[in-house]
Amino acid sequence: MEYLRAIHWENESLIIVDQTRLPESLSYIKLNTVEKIWEAVKKLKVRGAPAIGIAAGYGVLVAAMNNRRKSKDDFVTEVKKSVEYLRTSRPTAVNLFKVLELFDGILEEDLPSVEQYIDEIEKTALAVHHDDIERCVRIGKEGSEIIPQSATIITHCNTGALATGGMGTALGVIYTAVNEGKKIRVFADETRPLLQGSRLTAYELQYAGIDVTLIADNMAASLMRNRKIDAVLVGADRIAANGDTANKIGTYGLAVMAEKHGVPFYVVAPLTTFDVELGSGREIPIEERAKDELLRTGECVTAPPDVKVFNPAFDVTPHELISGIITDYGIIYKPDTDKVKQFYEKFYNEPKYKELFK
Amino acid sequence: MEYLRAIHWENESLIIVDQTRLPESLSYIKLNTVEKIWEAVKKLKVRGAPAIGIAAGYGVLVAAMNNRRKSKDDFVTEVKKSVEYLRTSRPTAVNLFKVLELFDGILEEDLPSVEQYIDEIEKTALAVHHDDIERCVRIGKEGSEIIPQSATIITHCNTGALATGGMGTALGVIYTAVNEGKKIRVFADETRPLLQGSRLTAYELQYAGIDVTLIADNMAASLMRNRKIDAVLVGADRIAANGDTANKIGTYGLAVMAEKHGVPFYVVAPLTTFDVELGSGREIPIEERAKDELLRTGECVTAPPDVKVFNPAFDVTPHELISGIITDYGIIYKPDTDKVKQFYEKFYNEPKYKELFK
Repeated sequence: MEYLRAIHWENESLIIVDQTRLPESLSYIKLNTVEKIWEAVKKLKVRGAPAIGIAAGYGVLVAAMNNRRKSKDDFVTEVKKSVEYLRTSRPTAVNLFKVLELFDGILEEDLPSVEQYIDEIEKTALAVHHDDIERCVRIGKEGSEIIPQSATIITHCNTGALATGGMGTALGVIYTAVNEGKKIRVFADETRPLLQGSRLTAYELQYAGIDVTLIADNMAASLMRNRKIDAVLVGADRIAANGDTANKIGTYGLAVMAEKHGVPFYVVAPLTTFDVELGSGREIPIEERAKDELLRTGECVTAPPDVKVFNPAFDVTPHELISGIITDYGIIYKPDTDKVKQFYEKFYNEPKYKELFK
Repeated sequence: MEYLRAIHWENESLIIVDQTRLPESLSYIKLNTVEKIWEAVKKLKVRGAPAIGIAAGYGVLVAAMNNRRKSKDDFVTEVKKSVEYLRTSRPTAVNLFKVLELFDGILEEDLPSVEQYIDEIEKTALAVHHDDIERCVRIGKEGSEIIPQSATIITHCNTGALATGGMGTALGVIYTAVNEGKKIRVFADETRPLLQGSRLTAYELQYAGIDVTLIADNMAASLMRNRKIDAVLVGADRIAANGDTANKIGTYGLAVMAEKHGVPFYVVAPLTTFDVELGSGREIPIEERAKDELLRTGECVTAPPDVKVFNPAFDVTPHELISGIITDYGIIYKPDTDKVKQFYEKFYNEPKYKELFK
């Protein structure tokens, strides 16, 4: 099983799958200027919080390489400008800022030569990417342990190779289980309003040869009632100290359905997704997005243009509905404040975890 | 409050709102040949089981009028042909067949003149329409009794003036409550895959000046968690003897959500929707529709073209989740086999009920 490599570094250029052309065509584009990388992030050619961070890191590397013939002072000035420029590409993306801060640090150092700056920047850009690939691998292994030899799984939104630098979180568990020889059937929610499930998840699972069936979000309930579903696997945008999880709108509804039908419901996310400063999900702010997302699909008008719309991008699933949180350090079963804090504090101090990001 | 008059008879022609042009434009079309009416049903310019039946009735009337100068034998032959032709417009629509059977009966009679056939046909076509208008009025009155003076309601699919000959079933309850001076706020599920909620329900409620907000189907759960919802009102395609209800896909999920959040969940349908020959919802066959409905919206491709799709058009909500079934004869609270059968048998023998259909 080969998953889609949606982002990689090759011959001093960033190569990405242009996600705005999916599912109609799989086209790789080569980005060898900081402007092209900025535009790719801005225009959602690359998306998914980890993938955006990785692309930004390579953006700094491209800027460094393109300024390699400058004097040291000019080089530092130019690359700092590029870092600022990349910050403006997706103003709300947390990973983007976290990654760019790493380069601020390098550029504040007093290194002897341009070459050494480039070396440091290259190491960091690659490390950011490899860190994510590795987290996905570890999550996949941890998660696959709870997947039966033959399993039917429901997933929501896109949490795979098209959202991360590696094989993904919830989809990473599925890829790993398939690689271990398990027989997996996936039902993918289309995930209104932006259809990441039909445009991206269905595409990448099919690309990898995995048995995937597309459903509308409102079909999951009768699916659970009428056939055996072994697990629901979803990603996470932010996990509070008590395990409450903010994720793509529709996740909470799926969790309620899973509870009603006795289906195990797992959140799959790296430890970096935890925000233990927040006591519970009630403190997580929920972004409301443009009404236009519900009024049209592409160019097709599907609602009265002046109708009121409620379009929250995320919802919060309370920890009581979560069977376990599958992380890169293991699974927190039946999460609550004690378990999450203990787990987090234990692994937060691991050298591996601290390597790149606090 | 004036609801949209989506179907009416005027100057020997059927006038309908062309629903295929909604929500972009409200255009009325005049149909004065049986071919035009056939095409309107076939191409979903008119839709909703009761509305299709009504249009078919007027189709026979138009055919009769257009053959008024023929000999009696030729008249009967031609109109019979038209009845057969209309039967082919929507092969699975039960109301269509029930209505057309009424005209079979008339055409089998031996009446003295063409004029008398036309009289009978006209009376029947108008009666079918008026029967539906009246059922909607009665349902609205029965239902409004359970709606608080100020209420927030979630509805699914389209059960209004664009689905019936009158003001609708679930939406009929809302129109009636508003007319009685109640302050109603409606959240309308967009209702994937065919978006009847956004295209039709949002349109017709807005047309009537009712406070309506569009949501994606997967947002109803967090809405119920985060604000007070007074009731969920949905329609029905078929109700079994124990109260189990088949309705548009997504209804069952809404019912589970409502149970979880303590929100009253009402099915709204005329007595004609009951099929007491079926013991439970398990016996109701569920139509699976074309995969294309999930692969594209209008001309926009939103999924890989060769991906597998599961696209059931309906689901079954078990009676345990239903707070009440609001009918044109009153409300069956907490329906079960005993209550439904008692209620049905009581009103099945009412002259009003038997007037047109068994």
